[in-house]
Amino acid sequence: MDYSKFMLTINPKAQTQLENYKLMTGIIVPRPIALVSTVSSAGARNLAPFSFFTGVGSNPPTLCFCPALRKDDEAGPKDTLRNIEETGEFVVNIVNEAIGEPMNLTAADVAPDVDEFELAGLTPIPSDAVRPPRVAESPAQMECRLLQVIRTGNLPASGVLVLGEILRYHVREDLFDNFRIDHSRLGAIGRMAGNAYVRTQDRFDLIRPK
Amino acid sequence: MDYSKFMLTINPKAQTQLENYKLMTGIIVPRPIALVSTVSSAGARNLAPFSFFTGVGSNPPTLCFCPALRKDDEAGPKDTLRNIEETGEFVVNIVNEAIGEPMNLTAADVAPDVDEFELAGLTPIPSDAVRPPRVAESPAQMECRLLQVIRTGNLPASGVLVLGEILRYHVREDLFDNFRIDHSRLGAIGRMAGNAYVRTQDRFDLIRPK
Repeated sequence: MDYSKFMLTINPKAQTQLENYKLMTGIIVPRPIALVSTVSSAGARNLAPFSFFTGVGSNPPTLCFCPALRKDDEAGPKDTLRNIEETGEFVVNIVNEAIGEPMNLTAADVAPDVDEFELAGLTPIPSDAVRPPRVAESPAQMECRLLQVIRTGNLPASGVLVLGEILRYHVREDLFDNFRIDHSRLGAIGRMAGNAYVRTQDRFDLIRPK
Repeated sequence: MDYSKFMLTINPKAQTQLENYKLMTGIIVPRPIALVSTVSSAGARNLAPFSFFTGVGSNPPTLCFCPALRKDDEAGPKDTLRNIEETGEFVVNIVNEAIGEPMNLTAADVAPDVDEFELAGLTPIPSDAVRPPRVAESPAQMECRLLQVIRTGNLPASGVLVLGEILRYHVREDLFDNFRIDHSRLGAIGRMAGNAYVRTQDRFDLIRPK
């Protein structure tokens, strides 16, 4: 069978940055969503969603998310990145079906002094080990300390990796059973491309071979 | 409402590495799957799945995956990581429902000289710009050049980030419409925790606010 005849081959260098972005977000799916809370050095709260987000390693537990710089970032980085670089702290709040709509409201492009907790009707509650508040309505939250910011590529839309060590997990107790998470109850949503999201109830098992 | 009384608070330092791993993989969901093909400097093929995988930025298009080091990696890193460090090249093959079972077979813990393409019954086809072959049965493949390997944390189970620049996309033509991907036809699967995976057909839209 000649598979190659069904495939389009695309050279990224012949495409615009936006076309590359569309392809990457269309192909790398489904993506988990980090709803990241931070505070500025002056104490202003910020909350914003990121789906270039993953785990890195578990000793110590380390995660990373990528607040890719925007078109207009000649004017400066996103509030989230600036706050993290100023304070070294952030909280990753997991997004489930119940808070999909408020999460989406926090993605609005608003001035740095707008509190997205208020904008979205989400409730800030104190963290244990860091200054940024957690989102009370989120079913699982991870308090993080900045380890490293790594910049790659070119403006606009260059890559930024924010690596953080997890200092605390907070997990809704009905989801937790001896370090296993009940995914039916969690009801996490994932990011596809464009306006599309995906639920996580349509699961199946594959038993890992020896 | 006192949300805090429903939350368990867990300090990672009081838990084992495996407990941290279970929590991270249970909470950071759904994760996209990179089925990564490489060749050793001697030419032996390797194929293995990774779900600590995400995009980084789109100028140039850059992705990252994390082949977290295993318990026994005092003996050396995973074949995939060793091959990439030797050759500077890899291919990320996207996994859909049709190749879920073969993908799972490539996760077996076998000797470095075992060809997981043969083990899983997947078909290697030549890449354009790199030496590792693509998986013919995969609906979308990205040829990558290594940019950087970043190590964090401590053995065992320390973190490793492999950053790659995308040199070519290959996309099944029936999935592609002006740089948008048809997710119904793609049928990507995502990783949850343990043996659990998730399909991506249960989608919904949230319109991003202005």
